[in-house]
Amino acid sequence: MSARSLEINVSKISGAAEQSLSDRVAIEEPLEIRLGYSTSDGRTATSISITMRTPGHDAELATGFLFSESIIKRLQDVESVQPCGPPAPDSGNHNIVRVELASDVQVDLGRLQRHFYTTSSCGVCGKSSLDALRVTGVERRPDGGTRFARDMLVGLPDKLRDEQKTFAETGGLHAAAAFNSDGELIVTREDVGRHNAVDKVIGVLFARDLLPADDLGLIVSGRTSFELMQKTLMAGMPLLAAVSAPSSLAVQLAREFNVSLIGFLRGDTFNIYSGGERIT
Amino acid sequence: MSARSLEINVSKISGAAEQSLSDRVAIEEPLEIRLGYSTSDGRTATSISITMRTPGHDAELATGFLFSESIIKRLQDVESVQPCGPPAPDSGNHNIVRVELASDVQVDLGRLQRHFYTTSSCGVCGKSSLDALRVTGVERRPDGGTRFARDMLVGLPDKLRDEQKTFAETGGLHAAAAFNSDGELIVTREDVGRHNAVDKVIGVLFARDLLPADDLGLIVSGRTSFELMQKTLMAGMPLLAAVSAPSSLAVQLAREFNVSLIGFLRGDTFNIYSGGERIT
Repeated sequence: MSARSLEINVSKISGAAEQSLSDRVAIEEPLEIRLGYSTSDGRTATSISITMRTPGHDAELATGFLFSESIIKRLQDVESVQPCGPPAPDSGNHNIVRVELASDVQVDLGRLQRHFYTTSSCGVCGKSSLDALRVTGVERRPDGGTRFARDMLVGLPDKLRDEQKTFAETGGLHAAAAFNSDGELIVTREDVGRHNAVDKVIGVLFARDLLPADDLGLIVSGRTSFELMQKTLMAGMPLLAAVSAPSSLAVQLAREFNVSLIGFLRGDTFNIYSGGERIT
Repeated sequence: MSARSLEINVSKISGAAEQSLSDRVAIEEPLEIRLGYSTSDGRTATSISITMRTPGHDAELATGFLFSESIIKRLQDVESVQPCGPPAPDSGNHNIVRVELASDVQVDLGRLQRHFYTTSSCGVCGKSSLDALRVTGVERRPDGGTRFARDMLVGLPDKLRDEQKTFAETGGLHAAAAFNSDGELIVTREDVGRHNAVDKVIGVLFARDLLPADDLGLIVSGRTSFELMQKTLMAGMPLLAAVSAPSSLAVQLAREFNVSLIGFLRGDTFNIYSGGERIT
């Protein structure tokens, strides 16, 4: 298990007083995700992403990212996930993870590449925001399905906080968790990047063959953006709850795809931005 | 001036009570940055980045991003920055900005591309984190230079909050500001993405020909990461202060390049992680 936080010396200033002491900061290191897959010319390998993440659960981060990006869809699509190369000399962490896909998986790197770097003609962002940003193969969620009770929802932030072991040490990590309608946290993950924390949660659900997760909600410790709502949709989850504010695009996406979106979940209060019929 | 927030209907739950009311959320929309530049074959244009941002100050965001990425270095490198194409039909915002570079600017897109998408051989992330992640052309800062007083620093978060007009409406935006040693905020910018808020600030300093900003500090409303410390270094600023926690890599980078790093700046207390001799 990789360390999530690092002990460092720090000067603590309080008014005119200054003391030197030891404190902990959340570890941030790059993770390179490499993909091995089959083409008509045989087997090939490509580096598809470098993300700054908190070490630990790297395999889950990689598979969760690949699932969110529609590169993999089923457990059978993944043959193996392994650390690659020697550990980084300064930390001892393996900062490359290599995902080998089954030989029948068709990989469209062009689609992934557009996400990061595009040579498309002027126009992508001139379209409607929601048209322009693909949510691959996701359809509008029908009404009905799993319900989530108000009393259960208001208890989630405390449960999430209890699980945030590294946050308690450092004050520097985002958290995400999947929960069921009884309010049980199925899995909780922390990361310096909130998208990484969500990818790790999705990676766990993927490994347990629980996707699409029709009966689970997702809670995050911070704000919600287009990106987090997109990942919620890809995971087939009917509800995204956040301790802080949503962006306009998170709200628009939630309404367009009929996903329940909750924000400012604090104390016994919260806001419902979309899908209120699932909240009982 | 583009709108920064959007009015939407929301159900507010408080215990057993529920009321329907109008609230505001921070606007998030994609911005595509296109670059026009000269090659040996003549003039060309390429889309180099799509970022989810809060509309407004797009030209500053684009130039700040290009400066942080070492694509542009001096005011003369930029011939024009203009919205491109028709406005997006749903919002009316121009979500493409086109930056035309002077004909003598050499563009190395390969370097930029590595940031987003890489086909390099296995190994980038196996190196030391700090070796692997380039901080182009930045040297270790010498001791001395501008000093920042404790009493001034503890007053900054309130000043920043006073400038956060959209945050006050929505609770959903990050802020960044440049300040001088007298504690004056030179420029404040807000965005759904903290890296965008910092790029906008750097874009303003760039437009005013204030870079490198040897005599200014940068303050951000949230946490500090590798990416924000990298932008601080690129802007030549001697101090980065944050209301919340730094990551391990932000601390390492600050110490390696002798930049002052402050965290948990709240009330009359803060932590100094690096460069304490500049704090008086």
